[in-house]
Amino acid sequence: MLDAVAALLLETGYDGLTIDTVAARSGVHRTTVYRRWRDTGGLLADALDAARDVPWTPPDTGSLVGDLTAINRQIVAALTEVPSITAALIAASFRSPVAAEALRSFWEDRYAAAAVVVERVAPGVPARPVLVASCAPVFYELVLLRGPATDDLAERYARLAAASVSRSSASP
Amino acid sequence: MLDAVAALLLETGYDGLTIDTVAARSGVHRTTVYRRWRDTGGLLADALDAARDVPWTPPDTGSLVGDLTAINRQIVAALTEVPSITAALIAASFRSPVAAEALRSFWEDRYAAAAVVVERVAPGVPARPVLVASCAPVFYELVLLRGPATDDLAERYARLAAASVSRSSASP
Repeated sequence: MLDAVAALLLETGYDGLTIDTVAARSGVHRTTVYRRWRDTGGLLADALDAARDVPWTPPDTGSLVGDLTAINRQIVAALTEVPSITAALIAASFRSPVAAEALRSFWEDRYAAAAVVVERVAPGVPARPVLVASCAPVFYELVLLRGPATDDLAERYARLAAASVSRSSASP
Repeated sequence: MLDAVAALLLETGYDGLTIDTVAARSGVHRTTVYRRWRDTGGLLADALDAARDVPWTPPDTGSLVGDLTAINRQIVAALTEVPSITAALIAASFRSPVAAEALRSFWEDRYAAAAVVVERVAPGVPARPVLVASCAPVFYELVLLRGPATDDLAERYARLAAASVSRSSASP
């Protein structure tokens, strides 16, 4: 059923995602879909929670800039694949508070898991702001400015974020 | 008429913004509204272009971190005022390609105007990536993560971006 949610979101956007269309696409009776999810926001939140349960291991390239670049490349890939479920979910988050909260939880989980890439080179430096400083410009350039995914996009902002850490750390 | 667009966008969101509601709110005949804008995207784009024409002077506090912090505080203020026309326009940009393009133009104009804050302390350092590294985390935290505007939000990411420049510049 969650596959049906993803497929419909990509094909028709949030407006096309209803209990009825999910029931039709998944072959599950609409009463069952309704009993489980109540509304579109619940459907989206469950789809995101399922993604959250997929194990994710942060990269370990041997350098902070390498790790941050690898994470940014994963974000670029997720936002530029055609069609992009991530981009569709971000758009949907502006229509559904439940989806917005599920997206927030998903990202915060990832930042918590990725903290190790900062902590192993710069113990004592708060990891989350460095990760956000590295990743946020990629989201901003691709999602809000709708710019192209240039070859250097992932590395450019990883380098700036890594440089800000190196300045205050004894072991860059 | 553009005041009516802003008021309706804030009160009812993109779904409530139509040629008819703008005509009713502004007291202008709907045929006139239709002739001038054709559709909701055109209305939004014109409202943004009007905002683009308002003169904006980048801050000059005497330091890069001070200037970047001042810019970030303007972004925090624009995104957290209640109601926020900026937040409403970002949400609308996911429904209207014309609005998305107008928003992109507005931001790129601002980054071009703000380049001077980087160039005067770090000649030769490309300004736009530093500005985006400073500003993007604020948009990301407030718009995509829907987080609170903590007291240190503006300065935290301004400091990280400024630190990345100081490392490669002879005159921080």
